[in-house]
Amino acid sequence: MTTTYRIAVIGGTGPQGKGLGYRFAKAGHSVVLGSRSAEKAGPVADEVTERLAGVEGAGSVTGAANADAIGEADVVLLAVPYDGHAELVESLPLAGKTVISCVNPLAFDKRGAHGRVIDGGEGSAAEEAQRLQPEATVVGAFHNVSAVLLWGEDDYLDEDVLVVGDVVEAKEVAMDLAEAVTSRRGIDAGKLRLARQLEPFTAVLISINRKYKTHAGVRISGV
Amino acid sequence: MTTTYRIAVIGGTGPQGKGLGYRFAKAGHSVVLGSRSAEKAGPVADEVTERLAGVEGAGSVTGAANADAIGEADVVLLAVPYDGHAELVESLPLAGKTVISCVNPLAFDKRGAHGRVIDGGEGSAAEEAQRLQPEATVVGAFHNVSAVLLWGEDDYLDEDVLVVGDVVEAKEVAMDLAEAVTSRRGIDAGKLRLARQLEPFTAVLISINRKYKTHAGVRISGV
Repeated sequence: MTTTYRIAVIGGTGPQGKGLGYRFAKAGHSVVLGSRSAEKAGPVADEVTERLAGVEGAGSVTGAANADAIGEADVVLLAVPYDGHAELVESLPLAGKTVISCVNPLAFDKRGAHGRVIDGGEGSAAEEAQRLQPEATVVGAFHNVSAVLLWGEDDYLDEDVLVVGDVVEAKEVAMDLAEAVTSRRGIDAGKLRLARQLEPFTAVLISINRKYKTHAGVRISGV
Repeated sequence: MTTTYRIAVIGGTGPQGKGLGYRFAKAGHSVVLGSRSAEKAGPVADEVTERLAGVEGAGSVTGAANADAIGEADVVLLAVPYDGHAELVESLPLAGKTVISCVNPLAFDKRGAHGRVIDGGEGSAAEEAQRLQPEATVVGAFHNVSAVLLWGEDDYLDEDVLVVGDVVEAKEVAMDLAEAVTSRRGIDAGKLRLARQLEPFTAVLISINRKYKTHAGVRISGV
């Protein structure tokens, strides 16, 4: 790994945010887990720190209120539920930041998981974040990684991280960070609007998980 | 392989239909390649037959007009462009058939490939086919396999075939047929409505192909 990032994880006490924060810190990045209240973030940061005891070169993990977590961060990971997403994103000091959205707008009913329709099919959570924060640079990535495996025992996940965005330099950051999770660079999967495909693909993986009692992931062959 | 199917490929002279027909016949299934005109289908069937010369146990490959191709088929593969899809599907004698749709409603502009919005984001080509042919059983599968690799030299493609549908028995047929292409059974990926995710995911693979000069495919880890 050549670059070490300072990463704020918004929604850092949820399973996806906590799991990714753990993996990033394990690989040497410094992480601030953000939550609605600093009181909630602190104990989760302590839990992750404890888990990293004895890991050589691990980065620091601290907790803070969401907006405070962003402070000095180079990179902000949005790992929040889609409910309340717009309101929260609008409230954050994201101008000038590289923002990675792994938000999955999903719905569940008796037929299983499926994608929520955003902007009549012509939108995604990542595009919404970009629209609400025009001075941030938003990319989409880490939508499909399994929270269970992130917090699990395997050194790396047997998955690929697909990265979409309209600014190459911001995609490169997410592709770098993917190495902490999969041991391989992330894959440049095209423009930000393709987040419309990556986000609800998680519903397909959830369906596979239910059918096969597993934690399925996406690998891309041929790259 | 336990079951041998008689397969009609609608759009059997296009790259996806011809490539899948070739793979199915190579594995012992019998295939009728359908086209708008029998005159166009015949030479393509001859080309595939020639390619299968010397392949032990290969099934027959013949050509016919689309509606005639269906005749005695157990399984009908829809491998047509989305333009004109509804009109064509409506015209075919599909009642009582297991129908596999690999139709990808995609659009292209200067920013690359992206998914077309079907029914305001609440539809897919596969669901449209099911709606137009209520006495057929439609499943979605084979959306993401590379036409170039289908017609290529590798024994099998390093990809997984994701199968969605509302009727298990019909999904089983597509999962069987996947073995001809990947050497592995297809993966049950949930209900038919998840075709909304599988169809436009092809746009993501096309973006990866352009970026990395490759023929990318999807593998599912953990199954």
